[in-house]
Amino acid sequence: MDNFIFENPTKVIFGQDTIKNIGTEIKSHNVKKVLVLYGKGSIFKNGVYDTAIGSLKENDIDIIEIGGVKSNPVLSKVYEAIEVGKKEKVDGILAIGGGSTIDTAKTVSAGICYEGDIWDAFEKTYIIDKALPIFTILTISATGSEMNGGCVITKEDEKKKWSTSASVLYPKVSIIDPTIQSTLPKEQTVYGAVDAISHILECYFIGGDKTDVIDEMSEGIIRTIMKHSKILIKDPNNYNSRSQLAWSATLALNGNLKIAKNGGDWATHGIEHSVSAFTDVAHGAGLAIIHPAWMKYVYKEDVNKFKRFGENIFGIKEGTSEEIALEGISKLKEFFKDLGAPTTLKELGIKKEELDKFADNTELVTPLGRLKALNRQDILNILKIAYE
Amino acid sequence: MDNFIFENPTKVIFGQDTIKNIGTEIKSHNVKKVLVLYGKGSIFKNGVYDTAIGSLKENDIDIIEIGGVKSNPVLSKVYEAIEVGKKEKVDGILAIGGGSTIDTAKTVSAGICYEGDIWDAFEKTYIIDKALPIFTILTISATGSEMNGGCVITKEDEKKKWSTSASVLYPKVSIIDPTIQSTLPKEQTVYGAVDAISHILECYFIGGDKTDVIDEMSEGIIRTIMKHSKILIKDPNNYNSRSQLAWSATLALNGNLKIAKNGGDWATHGIEHSVSAFTDVAHGAGLAIIHPAWMKYVYKEDVNKFKRFGENIFGIKEGTSEEIALEGISKLKEFFKDLGAPTTLKELGIKKEELDKFADNTELVTPLGRLKALNRQDILNILKIAYE
Repeated sequence: MDNFIFENPTKVIFGQDTIKNIGTEIKSHNVKKVLVLYGKGSIFKNGVYDTAIGSLKENDIDIIEIGGVKSNPVLSKVYEAIEVGKKEKVDGILAIGGGSTIDTAKTVSAGICYEGDIWDAFEKTYIIDKALPIFTILTISATGSEMNGGCVITKEDEKKKWSTSASVLYPKVSIIDPTIQSTLPKEQTVYGAVDAISHILECYFIGGDKTDVIDEMSEGIIRTIMKHSKILIKDPNNYNSRSQLAWSATLALNGNLKIAKNGGDWATHGIEHSVSAFTDVAHGAGLAIIHPAWMKYVYKEDVNKFKRFGENIFGIKEGTSEEIALEGISKLKEFFKDLGAPTTLKELGIKKEELDKFADNTELVTPLGRLKALNRQDILNILKIAYE
Repeated sequence: MDNFIFENPTKVIFGQDTIKNIGTEIKSHNVKKVLVLYGKGSIFKNGVYDTAIGSLKENDIDIIEIGGVKSNPVLSKVYEAIEVGKKEKVDGILAIGGGSTIDTAKTVSAGICYEGDIWDAFEKTYIIDKALPIFTILTISATGSEMNGGCVITKEDEKKKWSTSASVLYPKVSIIDPTIQSTLPKEQTVYGAVDAISHILECYFIGGDKTDVIDEMSEGIIRTIMKHSKILIKDPNNYNSRSQLAWSATLALNGNLKIAKNGGDWATHGIEHSVSAFTDVAHGAGLAIIHPAWMKYVYKEDVNKFKRFGENIFGIKEGTSEEIALEGISKLKEFFKDLGAPTTLKELGIKKEELDKFADNTELVTPLGRLKALNRQDILNILKIAYE
C-alpha cells in the first residue's frame, strides 16, 4: 500500500431529531453571527428551517440569511454571499441543504477571509489557508461534502465547473438526519445513490492489488448503497434504508476510501462537470451515463481490478477475466437503469454535435485521469460511448 | 440504524520512512519539552529510537525519557512517569511502541493535568477532561490505541485491568511505519491480528440487521486481516501484507466500526483482562481463546447475525441458520489455531481451580456484555468452555 496521510476533523451528528443541536454546536465554537445559506425552500416545508433557526436563536446567535442556492451552484451566488458576509461581519457559515449549498458555503467561508477573487482557488493560483468555521445540516445525501474539504462551483460565463479543496474547509460539525430525506423526489434519491457509487469508483480502480482493505470497504459500501437505494425507490419512508444510504454516501467521500489511491481518478467527474456546465443536467444523472462509458473505455488498463469489481459487486463467477470485467460494467449500467437513471446522453436531449464542445471544456482540466491519462480524443471517445 | 456521533481528530501518517516526521509534527503543536515513553528496547535495535530522537532534536524539542513500559502495562509505571512529567514540566508526550506504551502515555498525559489519583478515571469517579497532547510512533499493530481515545491499565495490587477513555486522549498525530514490524517475533504478529479481529467482533454482533454498512465494512476488514496475517506468518517481510494488516488494525478500533453499535459488547475483553491480570498472558493469546468461547455461549441471542458471520467470513452456504452460525465459530477457532494462537486456557498452563478467581475479578466490571448481559455464572460458563 502506498504511503498516505489521513485526517478528518469533522464531527458528525447523525440520526433522527438531531437538527435541534445545531445552535449548541455553533455556540461551542464561539460563533456569534452566522450566515445561513440554503436553496429553493424545501426546508420551509419539512420543518428543517424552523428547527435550525429556533436552535440558533435559543443560543443567542445572530443570523443573516441567503436563500436561492441552486443545484450546480454558481460563482455569482458565491460573490453575492461573500459581499453580504463581509459587510455583516459574520464569523461562521451554516449551510442547510445538499452538496450545492455546502459547496457554496465552503467557497464563501474562504472568500470572506481572502482579499482577492476566490475563483483563484479553483484556478489553483491561490491555496486556501483560511476560512470561517463551516457548519452543515444535510438535507440530501449524495456529494459527501458534509465530511470533506472539497467543493465544486461553476463559473457561468466561462462554463467552468471546477473544484478546489483545503483542510480548513472541512465542516466543524455536520448534522445528518435521514428522516428529512423521506420526502425527496424519487430521482434525487436515485442521483444521490449514483453520485455516492461514482465517488467510490473514482478511487476503487486505482491501486491495483495493493489496496485490499480499502477495496474491501469500498465494495461493502457499494453493495450497501445498491441494496438500500433499491428498497428506497419503492419504500421512501424506510428509515433503516435511508440511514444506510445516508451514512454510506458520507463514507463514500470522507477520505477513508481515497487512502493509497493516488488521489483517485476523477476523469468521469471531470467529463460530467463539462456536460452539466452546459446543460444543467443533474450531476447524478450525468454520472450514471458517463461512469459506465469511462469504465468500458479504460478497463484494459487493469483487467484484474475490473474483474474483481464484477465478482465482488455482482457475484459474476464464470468467464475469462475480460468477460467478467465487461459483464460487471454492463450490470452496473443495468443497475443504474433499473433505479431510474438515464443511461445515454441522447436520452437527455443532447445533440451529437455538442460532444465536441464538452470535450473542449473537459480538456481544460489537466491532467485528467489517473488510471489512464486522457487527452481530448480519449474524452471524445468516452462521450461517444456515452451518447447512445 | 441508531443515532450516533462520530468524531476522530487523530492525524495518521502512514508508510515507509515516515518516522522522521515526528519532530516537525510535535513542533507544529507548539510542544517544547516532550516526555518520551517506550518499552523494552527493541526500538534501539531497529533504528526507530535514533530516527525519532534525531527528529526531535532537529526541531529543538527538549526530551525526557522513560523506558521499561511492559506489556499489560501497570499503574506503578504510570505513577512514575506522571511524577517525572510534572517535575520536568513537560508539555507533550510521545509514545514509541505498541498499545501498552500508548495506553501508558495516555494515562500519564491525563495524570499530569489532574490533581488527584489518575486511577479515579478507571474507577469512573473522574471524567478526564484535560490531558497533554499525545503523539505516537506505532511499532506493533494490534490495539488500535494509536487512533482512539481509550486506554487499558492494570492496577497490580488489586489485579484490576481496567479501561477508560476520553476525547482529549486521541493522539494528535500517530505515525505508522509498517516496515519496522517485519522484525517482530511471529507470535506478536499473530496476537496483533487476533486482537484486531476481536475488536471488530466486539461490535459486529450488536445492531442486528440495522447496521448493514458497518457490518459490510467490518466483514471486509476481518477478511483482509485473515488473508494478510496468513501471508505474514510465512513471509514476515511482505510489505503489502504488513501495510494491509497495520491499517486494518487501526481501522478495527478507530470508531468507524463502533457506529450504531451501542458502544459494542466488550464482554470478551472484560473476561480476558481478568485472565491476563492474573497470568500476564499476552492479550491476543487470551482473546483467541475467549472470543470463540463467548460466541458459542451467546450466539442464540442473534442466530441470524452469527449466520451472517459464517456466510460472509467463511463462505459457509449449507445448513440451517444455527448450523452455519456454529460452523462459523468453529472455523474462527480453527483459523486462530492455524495462525499459531492457543485455543484453550489449559494450554496456557492455567488450572481449572483458577477459573473462579477470574470470574470473581471479571464480575467487578459492571455491566458486562451488551448482546447478552453476563452475571458471574455466565462468566464462569464461558471460562469453562474456554478451558479445554
